[in-house]
Amino acid sequence: MSQKRPVENGVSPIFVERWSPRSYDESSISEAELNTLFEAARWTPSAYNAQPWRFIYARRGTPQWQTFLDLLIPYNRAWAERASALVIAVSAQEFVPPGAKEAISTGAQSYDTGAAVAYLVLQASLSRLATHIVTGFDKDAARQVLGIPQNFKVESAIVIGRQGKPEALSPELQARETPNERQPLQNFVAEGRFGFKG
Amino acid sequence: MSQKRPVENGVSPIFVERWSPRSYDESSISEAELNTLFEAARWTPSAYNAQPWRFIYARRGTPQWQTFLDLLIPYNRAWAERASALVIAVSAQEFVPPGAKEAISTGAQSYDTGAAVAYLVLQASLSRLATHIVTGFDKDAARQVLGIPQNFKVESAIVIGRQGKPEALSPELQARETPNERQPLQNFVAEGRFGFKG
Repeated sequence: MSQKRPVENGVSPIFVERWSPRSYDESSISEAELNTLFEAARWTPSAYNAQPWRFIYARRGTPQWQTFLDLLIPYNRAWAERASALVIAVSAQEFVPPGAKEAISTGAQSYDTGAAVAYLVLQASLSRLATHIVTGFDKDAARQVLGIPQNFKVESAIVIGRQGKPEALSPELQARETPNERQPLQNFVAEGRFGFKG
Repeated sequence: MSQKRPVENGVSPIFVERWSPRSYDESSISEAELNTLFEAARWTPSAYNAQPWRFIYARRGTPQWQTFLDLLIPYNRAWAERASALVIAVSAQEFVPPGAKEAISTGAQSYDTGAAVAYLVLQASLSRLATHIVTGFDKDAARQVLGIPQNFKVESAIVIGRQGKPEALSPELQARETPNERQPLQNFVAEGRFGFKG
């Protein structure tokens, strides 16, 4: 573990040990392995228990793999092409509560989908898989190519694989292949009243 | 564990065991206990590593406790008043990348803050604390009373405490005091192309 990431304040190491590498080993992944990650996302709490998250995925070695890779901006595609799976996370903008006839908006679709992806990538880390969430992809193209209706928002892409050697990366990316840092607690936690600079 | 929540697909039980009760035991909580939860949120991945989440909290027994409780709708206040802490989660709408002069919007503020709260409540469960995320509170009043600037969005409130006996709840809430269910994987996971009904 990098000295950049001390385990402080009694937190479980599982949160600190998860990070987002870019080097993958070009191995394949089974549906069962992915289902373990989706199962973690499944138990995410959500507003009204609406469960707005939807995941569309492609695995290396399947006909859709290249289609999914081509959605990424070139900077991301250059490293993600060695991963094992690519997941597009989208969120339902409407929800019909049980027993109701009309759809509502919970207002928490993106928030809840971010939560679900957080559990997905944490389970991946527990399963000794590496993940990297990216927003650098063509969301309009994803909507068109994957047939995503207008009442779903395209949120993020999740690159999943087994971590590879840094040497597989360009020198520029090799220099970034290390867990990144975080701001200290006092920058984002306040008692009683908002007291942050930015 | 309720039979409603089988541990399937090889998932870690930590995701399945966390649920959102409404009965709390009126105990107090220390700053150190809360910092363990914020520390988990701290390590959440975010777009541009912008870390947009901010948490403002009040603890039972402090001058701000009643002020925070009064933000909740009566339905939620009726049970949350026996909890130990209340956290308001807000998200920064602007981010100045390192080395840049101009602020940008990452577009992922709510998504990233939902992810951070997901880790916060999972760490709570690991710390044997119970949590319940609510959106039923007066966000405008929260902004005014807590001094939240316009360039921050009020996202959610997190009720934190130690689980109490169901008998402390009204008969109506007692009937709901059990882990809720989830839809099956095939309702929100698809390979290759969007293929969901709703």
